Amino acid sequence: MHNSNSSFIKNNESKNIDENIYDKYFSDILSNIKNEKRYRKFTYLNYSGSTFPIATDSLTGNRLTIWCSNNYLGMAHNEDIISHHQKSIQKYGVGAGGTRNISGSSSSLFDLEFTLSKLYDKESAMVFTSGYIANQSTIEALGKIIPNAIIFSDEENHSSIIHGIRASKLPKHIFPHNDIIALQKYLSEYPINQPKIIICESIYSMTGTAAPLKDIVSIAKEHNAIIYLDEVHAVGLYGKNGSGLAEELGLTDQIDIIQGTLGKAYGLVGGYVVSTKNCIDTIMAVAHGFIFTTAIPPAIAETASFCIKKISNIDGQNLRIKHKENIKYLKKRMEDKKIPFIDNGYHIIPIIVGDSQKAEKISSILKSDYKIYIQHINYPTVPRGQERLRIIPTPLHTVDMIDKLCDALYKVLKLYKII
Amino acid sequence: MHNSNSSFIKNNESKNIDENIYDKYFSDILSNIKNEKRYRKFTYLNYSGSTFPIATDSLTGNRLTIWCSNNYLGMAHNEDIISHHQKSIQKYGVGAGGTRNISGSSSSLFDLEFTLSKLYDKESAMVFTSGYIANQSTIEALGKIIPNAIIFSDEENHSSIIHGIRASKLPKHIFPHNDIIALQKYLSEYPINQPKIIICESIYSMTGTAAPLKDIVSIAKEHNAIIYLDEVHAVGLYGKNGSGLAEELGLTDQIDIIQGTLGKAYGLVGGYVVSTKNCIDTIMAVAHGFIFTTAIPPAIAETASFCIKKISNIDGQNLRIKHKENIKYLKKRMEDKKIPFIDNGYHIIPIIVGDSQKAEKISSILKSDYKIYIQHINYPTVPRGQERLRIIPTPLHTVDMIDKLCDALYKVLKLYKII
Repeated sequence: MHNSNSSFIKNNESKNIDENIYDKYFSDILSNIKNEKRYRKFTYLNYSGSTFPIATDSLTGNRLTIWCSNNYLGMAHNEDIISHHQKSIQKYGVGAGGTRNISGSSSSLFDLEFTLSKLYDKESAMVFTSGYIANQSTIEALGKIIPNAIIFSDEENHSSIIHGIRASKLPKHIFPHNDIIALQKYLSEYPINQPKIIICESIYSMTGTAAPLKDIVSIAKEHNAIIYLDEVHAVGLYGKNGSGLAEELGLTDQIDIIQGTLGKAYGLVGGYVVSTKNCIDTIMAVAHGFIFTTAIPPAIAETASFCIKKISNIDGQNLRIKHKENIKYLKKRMEDKKIPFIDNGYHIIPIIVGDSQKAEKISSILKSDYKIYIQHINYPTVPRGQERLRIIPTPLHTVDMIDKLCDALYKVLKLYKII
Repeated sequence: MHNSNSSFIKNNESKNIDENIYDKYFSDILSNIKNEKRYRKFTYLNYSGSTFPIATDSLTGNRLTIWCSNNYLGMAHNEDIISHHQKSIQKYGVGAGGTRNISGSSSSLFDLEFTLSKLYDKESAMVFTSGYIANQSTIEALGKIIPNAIIFSDEENHSSIIHGIRASKLPKHIFPHNDIIALQKYLSEYPINQPKIIICESIYSMTGTAAPLKDIVSIAKEHNAIIYLDEVHAVGLYGKNGSGLAEELGLTDQIDIIQGTLGKAYGLVGGYVVSTKNCIDTIMAVAHGFIFTTAIPPAIAETASFCIKKISNIDGQNLRIKHKENIKYLKKRMEDKKIPFIDNGYHIIPIIVGDSQKAEKISSILKSDYKIYIQHINYPTVPRGQERLRIIPTPLHTVDMIDKLCDALYKVLKLYKII
């Protein structure tokens, strides 16, 4: 992969140039990251056919049990979805070939947006190329649309939300994680008719905590604020139809803008936002990350509609029951073994290690000696000192897999004095 | 699709709230856009199987000939690609299920990045979910990596580049489109060892102009600047292997960072950046739009590698020959009929209309009366007064289609006094 052609060295004999100034920036940053043990070596996996949660480690050829995937319901490797998607591709081809406005809007994308609006019982929906760009572009657009709004954002909100807020240029208050009192206090600083946007996630990916949605809805009403809710880690998993935590709590109609993903429980790729017709129409007209990018492929849109329907019907309901059973059984087994996990009542189960090197080593031994893949999470994804393993059970994990996981965790965490 | 549940109205009788303050923001913006005739009604197309460039208008059922797609070589509907992608899906499933660092890196993504690095004869490549996010995140990351750099950006650079520059927070000079003298002047304001990044596109999507790459390479050397080149509208179409305009001009080894797309000539979805190993490694460690998002599906990565190889071999070379023949024939026929197009020597052929309503009407008549789809392009995609039609021939258009297009254009442009 190496050659001598591509370098940042410019030859110009007539000038006294430090020829390596550019490469030095890269090298210095890489050295720092490596010194801090933060350099990420990706684990390249080969998921063959519908064997999920088993996959092959491309490097070693080992068959690993995956315990850290956001393919929450196994839909990325579900046989129905695979076969449906193959038919969609035969029908519609592999790509959209254009932006939404210039030849890239497909009838299947129209159907998907309709399907999403019905799922949430909202007037309209719009689909983005990813959940990341859905957050970033929508929040940025809100800054253009409501230029005198104030943003109130949970401190643990995702990078895509933070980028959206920065790009919106709106003034903001960052409130401590799930701290309703602090949020209330910030909101009270403004007159009732001052536009206010509260932004939070329903379930937080790195901690598994859930937002106190009922309280947030109540104080949003009191202060005439709108709520922007990121449901990406709850979509497919909570609520009768699997639309997310707001549905489970009976609050969907109280949330003004809901953002979600097609890339986790729905197993595909893409993101979306649902709201009123006027709101979605305006964001569609303003959001650059929606306007100036190739639309998602028609076949993906078509398969996403199929998957959303599948997950909202009895198939999905059964998967959600099995999901909850597995979570319960896993947590019980971990308690039995005195494995110190954080239980926030949901499906993401963190074990705090608190040291980047130790976290990396534990993850590495689990992989090599126990054929279990749990990615260690280091800074900047979590704060320094909060380095962790993060366990994600799915309905496809078996009792045997759970037992083996707990045995392995017990041994390795004991070795590293976490137990 | 309408219901009364979802509205921005908060009921709170104890406060004197203007209940519709939020909806008014949306309505006002929508009214303005509609008054300015800028409201976009998407044309929903149904590309069935491998009939491209013919597709069905979902609204009318009419079979349209598409003259504005970025599916430049028809790969989105190519039979080989469709059949290969179906096999990839059987093999790898439909989605990645995680971020690059947390279970989402697939062996096919590794192979794709290797394939891309070889295509450009560079050390490394990295794949993003879209070309948009590739530009935005990479340029933002460069701001963190080289915090004292100055950016020199062509005024016609794409929205994704502009967003990346803003997010980078680097000081910038915007030089007039392709104006080497102005670029030179701005560069001269800084000492030789001041880091400088020149950002341009190889072919500009709204005008079809090409950057004077040879001159840019030469003055970049003189001023010790690095070059970031967006090749999205040239990838697949220019150069022996179809890697873009830099290859056609023999300049690939002189460009420091090249950005491209999998969503246009390669027919799929996704974006990428190629450069030195150190540069790519650093961007991978820093770019939030790469780190904090679900990776592209393994099956898409696998099919992309297949397509890139196909387009770089004799299949692609034959398509590029046919492409150039069609462009030449179309331009000749337009000249014969005195249709006033802008010829910048490349494959994007604009006809300036200069009025948003007129542009919309011409596009609409072409669609209804002649079954030809050419999206009119209005503000903000082009400046006001520069509203246009933009014609994009592919190798799959036939001589008969070109003749019919020219006849239709002649009649409709005559009707609207453009001829």
